Amino acid sequence: MPPAPAAAKSDSALQLSSPPRALMATHVLRLLPGDDLVLSLCAFARERSMRAACVLSCVGSTGKTTLRPAGARAPRVFEQSPFEIVSLVGTLGADGHHLHLSIADEECVVRGGHALEGCIVRTTAEVVLGEILGVEFHRRQDERTGYDELFISSRPE
Amino acid sequence: MPPAPAAAKSDSALQLSSPPRALMATHVLRLLPGDDLVLSLCAFARERSMRAACVLSCVGSTGKTTLRPAGARAPRVFEQSPFEIVSLVGTLGADGHHLHLSIADEECVVRGGHALEGCIVRTTAEVVLGEILGVEFHRRQDERTGYDELFISSRPE
Amino acid sequence: MPPAPAAAKSDSALQLSSPPRALMATHVLRLLPGDDLVLSLCAFARERSMRAACVLSCVGSTGKTTLRPAGARAPRVFEQSPFEIVSLVGTLGADGHHLHLSIADEECVVRGGHALEGCIVRTTAEVVLGEILGVEFHRRQDERTGYDELFISSRPE
Repeated sequence: MPPAPAAAKSDSALQLSSPPRALMATHVLRLLPGDDLVLSLCAFARERSMRAACVLSCVGSTGKTTLRPAGARAPRVFEQSPFEIVSLVGTLGADGHHLHLSIADEECVVRGGHALEGCIVRTTAEVVLGEILGVEFHRRQDERTGYDELFISSRPE
Repeated sequence: MPPAPAAAKSDSALQLSSPPRALMATHVLRLLPGDDLVLSLCAFARERSMRAACVLSCVGSTGKTTLRPAGARAPRVFEQSPFEIVSLVGTLGADGHHLHLSIADEECVVRGGHALEGCIVRTTAEVVLGEILGVEFHRRQDERTGYDELFISSRPE
Repeated sequence: MPPAPAAAKSDSALQLSSPPRALMATHVLRLLPGDDLVLSLCAFARERSMRAACVLSCVGSTGKTTLRPAGARAPRVFEQSPFEIVSLVGTLGADGHHLHLSIADEECVVRGGHALEGCIVRTTAEVVLGEILGVEFHRRQDERTGYDELFISSRPE
């Protein structure tokens, strides 16, 4: 069994969780055919100056869909359209984002992975974002993982 | 690469996104065996006079599950029970809803699509809905897609 | 067609839904490699004295992943790492939790089920929890299902 979560104990705990009971504001957006899902959400978050946001719900469809599979470096492009979006999860901040997507095909088979540029909306994508007030997300190299990771800090609202 | 999202630029931008920083109220509901997932959520949203809501989280199980696969007109009924709900996403408004569902079977295989009437709760469905205050969802024909789509407007709270 | 949802009509309606328009507070957490997803979230919710919470969004990766498939008693362990988390849904309360997870593998194939102890974070898990204020979740035996189920009650905030 793994040890108790490091987040609760390590010196960096303050960078691994938000202050208690942050408030959330909500933003809803509909994307149009041809819009790039990831680029559009990042642009929308930037336009509204969101410092820390997450995807609360996303329903819609894609045609061409570009995912990076688990553990892979190369993207995988699903050209066979149409797809239904059955989950979009993740976080967006001022200097980066981290979004995972799963899509269902004409046989209801579901595929998923890390959402890259190149997930093109087919008919619609109705997206609800939650903006976490008083919090700021940053991404920078974390020696514990070897990747750019999420750092969470407080900011005056 | 696709152009910048139309939502940010078109004349209809006001109908494609909510006002900044809407507040959210939360509603939690448990459904019982035999309840129809989609009908029950719509009835609950109507009873509580929600004008704009989304699914924040849903955990539970279904038996018979009726999905419309991507790009299809005909529903597909999964009779092989039991299934675990692994995602439910989407929006609900006064005059319509748009919900996508994915379910995992006894082999952990996941299938998904557009949730239709006929997704029958097997043991439970714990659903958390977010009601977006000061916002109203409507669905009407949109020539850009050829379908009834989500229009988002402000309303006095 | 199924009857109208029992929740709206039964004597136990008050235990099957939250009071209208509860407010939500938000908590964000990043888990580290080796952390147990389910145990860590439960520990975090307990540390912050959350009485009623749900998963709003979770993005990250797992290695070894332990799921209980639909309708099964025995867990199924997916040892083939790495996996991307494409959905985590469910509720957490003072005396129990109910979480379903879906993961995508190196071929983008998605598998899912009931998340058990033994879902080990590989690089990161960025989790956003919503705490539903003024509400308390409890789990106890429900004769209507034969299982421990979610009961929802109000509490002074």
